[in-house]
Amino acid sequence: MKIEIPEGSLFGTANLPYGVFSTPGTPPRVGVRVGDSVLDLTVALGDEVFDHGSLNPFMAQGYDRWVEVRRRITELVGGDVPENAVHNLADVTLHLPVEVADYVDFYASEHHASNLGRLFRPDAEPLMPNWKHLPVGYHGRAGTVVLSGTDIVRPRGQRKAPDEAAPSFGECRRLDIEAELGFIVGVGSPLGSAVSTEDFSRCVFGSVLVNDWSARDIQAWEYVPLGPFLGKSFATSISAWVVPLLALEEARVATPVQDPEPLPYLKESQPWGLDIELSVAWNGHEVTRPPYREMYWSPAQMLAHMTVNGASSRTGDLYASGTISGPEKNQRGAFIELTWGGREPVLVGGEERTFLQDGDEVSISATAPAAGGARIGFGEVKGKILPATTPKP
Amino acid sequence: MKIEIPEGSLFGTANLPYGVFSTPGTPPRVGVRVGDSVLDLTVALGDEVFDHGSLNPFMAQGYDRWVEVRRRITELVGGDVPENAVHNLADVTLHLPVEVADYVDFYASEHHASNLGRLFRPDAEPLMPNWKHLPVGYHGRAGTVVLSGTDIVRPRGQRKAPDEAAPSFGECRRLDIEAELGFIVGVGSPLGSAVSTEDFSRCVFGSVLVNDWSARDIQAWEYVPLGPFLGKSFATSISAWVVPLLALEEARVATPVQDPEPLPYLKESQPWGLDIELSVAWNGHEVTRPPYREMYWSPAQMLAHMTVNGASSRTGDLYASGTISGPEKNQRGAFIELTWGGREPVLVGGEERTFLQDGDEVSISATAPAAGGARIGFGEVKGKILPATTPKP
Repeated sequence: MKIEIPEGSLFGTANLPYGVFSTPGTPPRVGVRVGDSVLDLTVALGDEVFDHGSLNPFMAQGYDRWVEVRRRITELVGGDVPENAVHNLADVTLHLPVEVADYVDFYASEHHASNLGRLFRPDAEPLMPNWKHLPVGYHGRAGTVVLSGTDIVRPRGQRKAPDEAAPSFGECRRLDIEAELGFIVGVGSPLGSAVSTEDFSRCVFGSVLVNDWSARDIQAWEYVPLGPFLGKSFATSISAWVVPLLALEEARVATPVQDPEPLPYLKESQPWGLDIELSVAWNGHEVTRPPYREMYWSPAQMLAHMTVNGASSRTGDLYASGTISGPEKNQRGAFIELTWGGREPVLVGGEERTFLQDGDEVSISATAPAAGGARIGFGEVKGKILPATTPKP
Repeated sequence: MKIEIPEGSLFGTANLPYGVFSTPGTPPRVGVRVGDSVLDLTVALGDEVFDHGSLNPFMAQGYDRWVEVRRRITELVGGDVPENAVHNLADVTLHLPVEVADYVDFYASEHHASNLGRLFRPDAEPLMPNWKHLPVGYHGRAGTVVLSGTDIVRPRGQRKAPDEAAPSFGECRRLDIEAELGFIVGVGSPLGSAVSTEDFSRCVFGSVLVNDWSARDIQAWEYVPLGPFLGKSFATSISAWVVPLLALEEARVATPVQDPEPLPYLKESQPWGLDIELSVAWNGHEVTRPPYREMYWSPAQMLAHMTVNGASSRTGDLYASGTISGPEKNQRGAFIELTWGGREPVLVGGEERTFLQDGDEVSISATAPAAGGARIGFGEVKGKILPATTPKP
């Protein structure tokens, strides 16, 4: 059969993102999204590397295989595909596409870091002295990376507002999002070695959307001096479809001018800024459009930095960009910035909102340019806020 | 055969720590150390759960099985053991005992946190306002947790001394250790639930020694505002033998008085402070004896805090205490404290030392009280510093 691709689909042959799906009574396996269909790669290519519940075994095969498989899928989709290899997207269950090894979150938007600096440390310079010299980042909790659509239970924890004498325990009062792009390591690097910016595209397999849910009140109280911990670790959502880096060639742009000049290990001979446009919908209403092209540090620079000390990387490592915020107010990728710490509510379908209320749903989507003026999509990463539950004793 | 246990051994029947070993030509599997022998549990107990390259499958079976298996091993060791189940420790190769899921490092010693505060932020209060309200912690890099004995390549990275105008790239000039105790989660907890302090001993399987190697110059430049990253992520060493929590009953003591009173979720009805004595040897010379009983926060409190926001935990999660330092100078568990930022060298076998030099070796060991006045041992976590190598291009 021929797979039909609807006119204007963001999932045409220029995209071909990978995911993990199952059909009733069968175990999860790797597929590729084509239009509104899912191509079962185990059946279509007759290769057992796809007959796994994660992309990891395929990703570990390396760059040349990624190129070859993409070529074969492109050929297949252009012609006749065995009917039993094709499923309607609506009929399948999607799963977390990757077994996440380590999770790192960067902080690579100058606009975001400056805004947060002003909000968290109003009496100090918004950007720390190190910020323009290195991509600041930290490790997050790999075990709480969840698939788009997973409900987010409002976290509880310790928080102390500036006007409170002592901390108290209770549910998060300032629950927020962070709209980010994530990068997935396909081929790791051994302990004691470093990945150069030139090696980026041979190491990183693809990209996903990330919502780094954030409990701002918990974070503000806990984060000095060792960084965010429980304010972030309750859940990090990623989109179901991994867009291969090979599909993002047309999106490549230079990063903003980096001044001061980065140290040699952070220089890029090839630009890896990405002209990807995000959109954040709050209860179905678009509230902001973060532009990835504004990010100060590129993902190639992030990976080079992350490994320059000799730290190994592994197949399945996920690192995220940090909140994507542009210079304009309607380009800010976190609600704490969009509402300026809750002091400037935004209208969401006629209702004033600052932070997330129980029952709210947030969906982040993105598109990127592809060959011939077309666009490709990342799908979405979404989640709904459920009320806090009493911790199990 | 009867397994001989040398007089005064720290690995008598009160200990029985688990590890992963292999013999020439056979794959890694689970064993128990008895005296200077290793008991092959797959052979001794005829149970395939031990025929794996990590303790994870056994740990996941839960508390009742941990108790039952310990009882069976105790019976076996007291009588006749099949000869093919026993190996000389000297004849086996040890492996990382656990497949590490997430790695978290706490900061639970008041003496250490105060000393570091004085050294890193000389003009401010040494303890942050949150420190006595919650066990401060952060996520580290699970993929670079390595077995004791693994060589440590001196990391490179960005660092900027206070008197330097701009950062430079190069090898770490202030390479340090952190003597810590680590706790390994045997049975995880689902997303959206919390582990109470009472559930600690049903969730945590056992304890290891940890050396959280630290590049102080890299750390000092990078850590604001998101915490330590490359200054720690190049390597974290753990000891080969996991001492079961069941072996540490006699070591349990109350923590130091906690004032202000912790919030209810951090209260313990049973004390989980631990009277474990560490010793740090630098090139074979003992330089400090950190006392675990001085730790402000207990491991049960750490786990309760780590999950109170609903973050899930997994079999194989490793969380470490943070540097163990007592009130005395010769009880400080990091060289930056012991040498007061490098300003007060210590004598190591007649040589003045501040931070680690290439070729230096550090070994951390520990003992704890057991029934009848005996002591049990943790073995050691050791590592040797190799010169920095040029990062692979």
